Amino acid sequence: MDRYDICIIGTGPAGVSAALTAKNRNKSILLIGKKDLSNKVIKSHKILNYPGFPDITGTDLVKAMREHLDKMGIEITEEQVTNVFAMGEYFAIQCAKEMYEAKSVILATGVMPGRLLPGEEMYLGNGVSYCATCDAALYKGKEATVLGYSSKEEGEAAFLAEVADRVYYVPVYPDEVGLKDPKIEVIRGIPKEIRRADGKSTLVLDGQEIVSDGIFVLRDSVSPGQLVPGLETEGAHIKTERDMSTSIKGLYAAGDITGTPYQDAKAVGEGNVAAISAAAYLSGAAN
Amino acid sequence: MDRYDICIIGTGPAGVSAALTAKNRNKSILLIGKKDLSNKVIKSHKILNYPGFPDITGTDLVKAMREHLDKMGIEITEEQVTNVFAMGEYFAIQCAKEMYEAKSVILATGVMPGRLLPGEEMYLGNGVSYCATCDAALYKGKEATVLGYSSKEEGEAAFLAEVADRVYYVPVYPDEVGLKDPKIEVIRGIPKEIRRADGKSTLVLDGQEIVSDGIFVLRDSVSPGQLVPGLETEGAHIKTERDMSTSIKGLYAAGDITGTPYQDAKAVGEGNVAAISAAAYLSGAAN
Repeated sequence: MDRYDICIIGTGPAGVSAALTAKNRNKSILLIGKKDLSNKVIKSHKILNYPGFPDITGTDLVKAMREHLDKMGIEITEEQVTNVFAMGEYFAIQCAKEMYEAKSVILATGVMPGRLLPGEEMYLGNGVSYCATCDAALYKGKEATVLGYSSKEEGEAAFLAEVADRVYYVPVYPDEVGLKDPKIEVIRGIPKEIRRADGKSTLVLDGQEIVSDGIFVLRDSVSPGQLVPGLETEGAHIKTERDMSTSIKGLYAAGDITGTPYQDAKAVGEGNVAAISAAAYLSGAAN
Repeated sequence: MDRYDICIIGTGPAGVSAALTAKNRNKSILLIGKKDLSNKVIKSHKILNYPGFPDITGTDLVKAMREHLDKMGIEITEEQVTNVFAMGEYFAIQCAKEMYEAKSVILATGVMPGRLLPGEEMYLGNGVSYCATCDAALYKGKEATVLGYSSKEEGEAAFLAEVADRVYYVPVYPDEVGLKDPKIEVIRGIPKEIRRADGKSTLVLDGQEIVSDGIFVLRDSVSPGQLVPGLETEGAHIKTERDMSTSIKGLYAAGDITGTPYQDAKAVGEGNVAAISAAAYLSGAAN
C-alpha cells in the first residue's frame, strides 16, 4: 500500500489551503473530500471579507478554489472517512470503500451542525452506525432506520434497501424525498433521542417512535472524538496549538473544526499553517 | 479627538484582512500603513498557495487586495507609528505627524528583517532614533548619521539635512543613492555596531567608524517591544494566543509579527481572527 506523506481530510477552504501548501512543499498528498468542495461555502450568498475577492458569491469562491487545485494537479478522492487510527509510525485512515495510510494527517472536516442526539454516542457501534456502506451487510433480512441530514443520504438508504428487508427513512431537511423503492418508508419528524433495548434500536421522534434493528445517522461530518479515538477535544472542537498540532503527534487540524470564528479566511490560514507544520514534522524538525 | 473602535497598524495581508472583517462588523477603523500595501508581497515573484488565485504575482495580489479595500470604502492613513501606549480604557497611537486614539489595536506590522545592531536597543532614545520626522528638530546645527534600509529613507535623510549641519547617509541596499544635497555624504559599508560615549554616537562599519551627534536607524518596521512598551514578546515576535490576543488587553496581533510561517494565507487568517476577537472585546464578550 502507498503510504502518503500527508492525508488531508476535508475539501472546504481549510483542506484546500492545506493541500495547496503541502503540494507546494513537494509532499505526496491524499486529499479526501467532495469534488464540489464545500456545501457550506457554496451556500454563502456573498462573502465580503476573503481578501482579494470583493463581493464574491460562495459558488464563485468554490469555483476559484477548484480551479486552483486543478492547476496544481491535485486530485480529490471521494470517500467517507469513518475512522483515523494513530499507529505510532503512521496513521491508518479507514474509509467506507478502502483503507489508506499516511505519515501525517490534517483534519479539516468542518464542524458538525447541531448536537449529537441523546443516546447517539452511547450506542454507536451497538445499534447506531455512521456508515451505510460499511455496515449494510449486517442488515440482511433485517430492518434499519436511516436519519438523513441531507438529500444525498437518500442514496445510502437506497443502497441499504437492496440488502435489508425494510428501511425507515427520516429526512431532516425540507426537500421532497425522491426514494421510490417500496421497501423504503419515509417518515417525517424531529429526532429527539435514540434508545436501545433487547437488541432493537428505537428512534424517538416528536410524536412517534421507530423501532428497528439499527439506526444509521448520516450527517456530512461526524464528531472529531468519534473520528479519531483518543483525540483531545473541547466540546465539538479539536484542541489545537498555535501551529495547529493536536494532542496526537503527527495529527493536525484546521478550519471550523478547531473552533470559532467560522470564517473562510481563518480556515485558509489554518490550513496553510497545518500543512507547514506537517511538513516540518515529516522532516523531523517538530519532533 | 475621534476615538476609533479598532486601529489596525500595517497594510500587508494581515492588516488588510483585519480591516475588511472589522469593517464588515461595522466597526469604525483607522488603518495605518502604506497605500501600496506590502513591499514584501509586491516583491514575491509568484504566490502559488493563496487559495483562489493560482499562480498570481505579488503585484497582482496586492492590486486585488487594494481594490477590495476600495470597494469596501476603507481608506489608508499613511503615517509612521512610533509608539502605541496602553492607557487602560483606550490606546494612544503616537505617529510621526499626529496622535490617534482607539479602543483596541491590531498590530500587523510584519517582521523586522535581520537583527538589531549591538547597542541599538541600549541607546534608543539616547543617541539612537527610529524617526527622523519626530527628532529632526533636535539636530539643528548638529551632525547626524542615517542608516537607511530602503531607498525610501533617502527622503528622511534629505529632510534631516534641512535642519542639521551635516548628514552621513549609509544605505543598506545596493541601489544607487539619489541624494544631491552637498550637506549629505553617502558612505557605504556593512553596519556592525552602535556605540555611545561623551555625547557622541558612533556607527561602526566594516572598515570605518562614523562619529556624529546621533544615529537614525530607518527600517520598514521596528521591533514590537519597542513599539508597544510592556508587550510580551518571544524574540522578534509578539506572543499571541489562539484568538490572536497578546499580553495587553485589547491589543491583538496578526501576520508575520506573530511568528512563522511567513505566508500570505496564514497572515490573512490571523487578521480575520484578530478583527473578530477585537470586535468581541469591544462588545464586552472577551472581558
